[in-house]
Amino acid sequence: MRRFVPLLAGLLAAVGVTAGDTPTAPNGIALIRGYEDWKIIAPSYRPDKDHVRVILGNDTAVGAMKAGTRPFPDGTTLAKVAWTTRKHPKFPTAVEPDKFVQVEFMVKDAKKYAATGGWGFARFVGPELKPYGQGPGFVQECYGCHVPVMDNDFVFTGLAPIPR
Amino acid sequence: MRRFVPLLAGLLAAVGVTAGDTPTAPNGIALIRGYEDWKIIAPSYRPDKDHVRVILGNDTAVGAMKAGTRPFPDGTTLAKVAWTTRKHPKFPTAVEPDKFVQVEFMVKDAKKYAATGGWGFARFVGPELKPYGQGPGFVQECYGCHVPVMDNDFVFTGLAPIPR
Repeated sequence: MRRFVPLLAGLLAAVGVTAGDTPTAPNGIALIRGYEDWKIIAPSYRPDKDHVRVILGNDTAVGAMKAGTRPFPDGTTLAKVAWTTRKHPKFPTAVEPDKFVQVEFMVKDAKKYAATGGWGFARFVGPELKPYGQGPGFVQECYGCHVPVMDNDFVFTGLAPIPR
Repeated sequence: MRRFVPLLAGLLAAVGVTAGDTPTAPNGIALIRGYEDWKIIAPSYRPDKDHVRVILGNDTAVGAMKAGTRPFPDGTTLAKVAWTTRKHPKFPTAVEPDKFVQVEFMVKDAKKYAATGGWGFARFVGPELKPYGQGPGFVQECYGCHVPVMDNDFVFTGLAPIPR
């Protein structure tokens, strides 16, 4: 069988089937699987949208947050996950996640993404993780919103304080 | 010097100094350092207290959450971290963590903590991580609040949905 595996892989590639069919944003940034295992940077709440959110970071991101490194080093990747909310059925005083809304990524590569502050942006929406944006220009919308925090290398979120 | 180390350790123990001076609850549960590196189970929001929170879990907890294992296996440990909130100074539509309020732990050991549903409880308050409770009986307060979710092995929080 082993000799046929490359042939099979070639055939699958020819018909557009790739491993796992990873959703990919119009600017080429693919969904980063496994982000839910990253470390917590901070939670947040958006009363206007009624979302609870968490911002997670890969090890480079967490290291830079702890050290206060700005600009963030290449490889820094942040994931912001949003859920709609519900009151806990047994304790309605608490507001908890209900449905998954989206996950958004910021990927630092100062050269590659020089036009948008050194950050690549991507958003994947709904349970089907549909890539957001009609073309690669969608990132101007992301970038525009982040300009007010230019002096923090375009990042809104800080590390939530944890006494150690 | 090496031969004096055990003697020094013995002397330190005799005067009540332990490595790192780890805060310890009146029921003997010590602060678990490094919990901030655990994985996210869910964020939450408490409008009554104006807190944003995250519930983190060790690997046993995350595995049991994903598999739906109930009761949770011994060794399951959950950490709930709470912060007061503030509006983001550059984007006041978003509510983010301000000051650390407390961290609470639930530690599963069905035999050791049989009197409180198999869970040991502990809370450490404020930047100084002051152990909560005047004596070991403080856990009745924790346990009492968790009885309404007895059918979920006394755990309120579920794994926030992440499409994979």
